[in-house]
Amino acid sequence: MEDGDRTDIKRCWVCFATEEDEPTAQWVEPCLCHGTTKWVHQSCLQRWIDEKQAGNSTASVYCPQCNTEYKIVFPPLGPFLSSIEKLDHCVNKVCPFAAAGIVVGSLYWSAVTYGAVTVMQVLGHKDGLEVMEKADPLFLLVGLPTIPLALILGKMIRWEDHVLRFWRRYISKIALLSIFSPKIGNAIQGMGVHYREPAEPTPLSDPVSATRILCGGLIMPTVATLIGKLCYGFVESGLHRALLGGITFIGIKGAIRIFYKQQQYIRQAQRVIQNYKDE
Amino acid sequence: MEDGDRTDIKRCWVCFATEEDEPTAQWVEPCLCHGTTKWVHQSCLQRWIDEKQAGNSTASVYCPQCNTEYKIVFPPLGPFLSSIEKLDHCVNKVCPFAAAGIVVGSLYWSAVTYGAVTVMQVLGHKDGLEVMEKADPLFLLVGLPTIPLALILGKMIRWEDHVLRFWRRYISKIALLSIFSPKIGNAIQGMGVHYREPAEPTPLSDPVSATRILCGGLIMPTVATLIGKLCYGFVESGLHRALLGGITFIGIKGAIRIFYKQQQYIRQAQRVIQNYKDE
Repeated sequence: MEDGDRTDIKRCWVCFATEEDEPTAQWVEPCLCHGTTKWVHQSCLQRWIDEKQAGNSTASVYCPQCNTEYKIVFPPLGPFLSSIEKLDHCVNKVCPFAAAGIVVGSLYWSAVTYGAVTVMQVLGHKDGLEVMEKADPLFLLVGLPTIPLALILGKMIRWEDHVLRFWRRYISKIALLSIFSPKIGNAIQGMGVHYREPAEPTPLSDPVSATRILCGGLIMPTVATLIGKLCYGFVESGLHRALLGGITFIGIKGAIRIFYKQQQYIRQAQRVIQNYKDE
Repeated sequence: MEDGDRTDIKRCWVCFATEEDEPTAQWVEPCLCHGTTKWVHQSCLQRWIDEKQAGNSTASVYCPQCNTEYKIVFPPLGPFLSSIEKLDHCVNKVCPFAAAGIVVGSLYWSAVTYGAVTVMQVLGHKDGLEVMEKADPLFLLVGLPTIPLALILGKMIRWEDHVLRFWRRYISKIALLSIFSPKIGNAIQGMGVHYREPAEPTPLSDPVSATRILCGGLIMPTVATLIGKLCYGFVESGLHRALLGGITFIGIKGAIRIFYKQQQYIRQAQRVIQNYKDE
């Protein structure tokens, strides 16, 4: 051990000064290290720990050699200050939950408002207000926010896909092909191309689809009321008119969507990969 | 070239069958490849492309050898279907913005409601309603949501930190030490420990701190009204009472916070790293 004759001399592992260089400096042996990294100046180690903690004064710091945690001792905290510290910790724990409560409350309040606006839109301004004034307040606080929730959840049901799957399963594919586009169907059969079952597109779970569900669900009452007024003017009750309008809209939209999807399916089935030289 | 004598024979690079094996199969040379990877069955390449596209039927697919994009041709789309496709694309583009609008609208409406509740809380239920009924609706729609915004922004001003910094800069540190805790100050000076300037804690920018600002800002009118009623019952106007209550609360809380921070600063300055063997 080449440092053997020097281990009795204190040498700071931060600034390399010895006891002789700075006779008044305070020394500390803060860890299990022996040899040249046993002793360190109190002030040098303080600076080193400050750097390690990088502003977080409660972080634990360990010896880089032997991994012992340094024991950092603070002057005692008075009862007033320690109770303030406890209060501060409590507030820090409660605040995230309170903030979450504020966000949920804000959403809830918007849902209640949307529900009330929808009731007035569907039943008419005057009748809607009357109905809500007569209803039990508790029922309103639960029932009104259920309206947008139900609209959005209802929008998430992809009933067209089920209809389409049912159709494809029970109706012969060739028959279907010739119903929709007899010419191409025959042409392909004539060319001897095997009918290809196209890959099913992955169900949309992207953010755009989510925003579409949100918007589609929330705009539904407006569309339903509008179509109800346009097509079912002879119906007395505003609610029935809006319901009929909504059913009409959903039905027509569903039919178009099924037709469009089936056409896309057929186009997929009929795609052809060209030779590179073909223009 | 060992395959030289076989390049005139078509061999599918997917299934390795030759023209002789399947005489009726359709062949395609879809890329710039020569030799053994020049020819491929139409149906084999279709399957291979399906796998590459993984459900996304509009994705481009490239030859794994020569990186040429395969030309995939679909039957033409009718005018009805192509207009539906365009409509679908439009809806997909508009929906994210509409959804963002819904979220902003929901926040705005909650802010308006909070503002109205605050006005009624501070001025009293009856007076508050009267003031809002008399006010210009446009002014209300802008003014009411400004209330929670101003409260939260106001909460973000860390005036205590500025006061504390000013104090530390212009008042001698040793004087400060002996004001707050003369004994320890003198003891440390006696021990010959250099006064250590503690690292400034990094300003809180974590999520907990953000929720604290939100909650603290929004609870302020309630606290101000409460303290106003408790301490300034002799003041007639509800607004003045709440303002006085708010100023009192902010003042006392700020003083406690400054005191607490300065004490923490001093404790940091006086921390000692212990020898490992000390208990």
